[in-house]
Amino acid sequence: MLTCTDEDLGVQLKHDEVVLDGFLIFFLLILTMSVKIDVVRLEIPENTNVIVGQSHFIKTVEDLYETLVSSSPSIKFGIGFCEASGKRLIRKDGNDEKLITSAVDACKRIAAGHVFVIYISNSFPINVLNRIKSVEEVVRVFAATANPLQVLVAETDQGRGVIGVVDGMTPLGVETEEDVKERYSILRKFGYKK
Amino acid sequence: MLTCTDEDLGVQLKHDEVVLDGFLIFFLLILTMSVKIDVVRLEIPENTNVIVGQSHFIKTVEDLYETLVSSSPSIKFGIGFCEASGKRLIRKDGNDEKLITSAVDACKRIAAGHVFVIYISNSFPINVLNRIKSVEEVVRVFAATANPLQVLVAETDQGRGVIGVVDGMTPLGVETEEDVKERYSILRKFGYKK
Amino acid sequence: MLTCTDEDLGVQLKHDEVVLDGFLIFFLLILTMSVKIDVVRLEIPENTNVIVGQSHFIKTVEDLYETLVSSSPSIKFGIGFCEASGKRLIRKDGNDEKLITSAVDACKRIAAGHVFVIYISNSFPINVLNRIKSVEEVVRVFAATANPLQVLVAETDQGRGVIGVVDGMTPLGVETEEDVKERYSILRKFGYKK
Repeated sequence: MLTCTDEDLGVQLKHDEVVLDGFLIFFLLILTMSVKIDVVRLEIPENTNVIVGQSHFIKTVEDLYETLVSSSPSIKFGIGFCEASGKRLIRKDGNDEKLITSAVDACKRIAAGHVFVIYISNSFPINVLNRIKSVEEVVRVFAATANPLQVLVAETDQGRGVIGVVDGMTPLGVETEEDVKERYSILRKFGYKK
Repeated sequence: MLTCTDEDLGVQLKHDEVVLDGFLIFFLLILTMSVKIDVVRLEIPENTNVIVGQSHFIKTVEDLYETLVSSSPSIKFGIGFCEASGKRLIRKDGNDEKLITSAVDACKRIAAGHVFVIYISNSFPINVLNRIKSVEEVVRVFAATANPLQVLVAETDQGRGVIGVVDGMTPLGVETEEDVKERYSILRKFGYKK
Repeated sequence: MLTCTDEDLGVQLKHDEVVLDGFLIFFLLILTMSVKIDVVRLEIPENTNVIVGQSHFIKTVEDLYETLVSSSPSIKFGIGFCEASGKRLIRKDGNDEKLITSAVDACKRIAAGHVFVIYISNSFPINVLNRIKSVEEVVRVFAATANPLQVLVAETDQGRGVIGVVDGMTPLGVETEEDVKERYSILRKFGYKK
């Protein structure tokens, strides 16, 4: 992705002081938008789901570990957490080396203070999401998905923060009566609904 | 709303290769911002409230239906949900045709994967919000309001995602002792506080 | 912070109708982005933490007061809430004048409908966060932190809305075995983990 730092803009503004007024207005506007938006595409290996959220405090890592490990006997998971002060390290834990590596890699690329990333397999978001939302350090959850996921990260002079996600694709239409029947029967076939 | 696609920009960049260096920096910057922000204004009919959130998985529709229908005997509601993969349909349910139509229309216009919209009447957000937050597919809630609501939607090459809302208007001042008394008594008049 | 209003842009567009095609495309693009992003840096006095969230309805203030005051005998706190319709006042409460002032000041600067700000001392986010998430008016929490905090606020023709936060700084690396041991022992030293 192409980038243009504030320094570039500063230089640019000086260059253009000789240019006609109209263009100066344009450069002022761009200086206002000193927030850069970065689109971070997360890799989601087959049969895994990713959960991205924000918490506070280093205790997050142990508490997320404990809540996930007790959620089911089958779950495999990896956690990454971006410590936002002090040593500012990506903290990590889990019970599967590959998933821990995936979570740490995602944290490196998101690189936003107090953001955590969890990869899970042999388990699904509905098995763990309410537990995660209830962890006492967790502020909010941005996404839980197996779809292609883009994390939108704003970057300022101080650091970075997640502003949203693009989770999968946009809708193509509205379901028909036939689609409703299919949806109804799929959930029963999965055993998710009676 | 005016739009300018990535293709337009690509062409533009080629055009300007002959132009002086200063302007090239400007085009690089705009290519960086390949995230378009769309402002979607939701219609909120009289005596209704809207709740906008994000979840995951098609089961959301039935679980939201069940949690809302059991929240009070009086509630009327419509649910729309943007399926983000597979058939990518706007899924819908509820117990009031008009409110279902409102929810589906809002989903069409937001058009962001895994986003849901709920319209309620004969019920208020405080009657249902904690139930909705606890639905096991629900990732987060963006707004619950009867105010004019603008949903800010980011659009990338992959799809769309909600980044925030403008819920009502900005404040005009700070409450005085007199305002505090009035606030206190209004809540007692409503029967909301003892 | 430099700003450029829609009016400026309107005038600008007229000015440039005489200019070559290439630059017209640029002005169309900027009109599309009529969302301004404002970076609001919150002051966090020593030994305090700040919690920023979004709710709905004026009852928020009393309910947050009650949930905070009952969270521990020691807590000192101040609450500010941006009423989004009607009188549109910043509502406030708490048990410490300085913290109430901090919360009101933060609300003045964020100035986004239905946003609340809480400052706490003699208490930590982990002591109150789950209580706050469970308040029936609370839609979501954006941040809970003692780090330098920037609140990213989008501004449209209608009003303002929080789109994200920069909470502390970006990570510098990944923790080593040595760092893990230190993290483990710090939490035990604090008495937070057995």
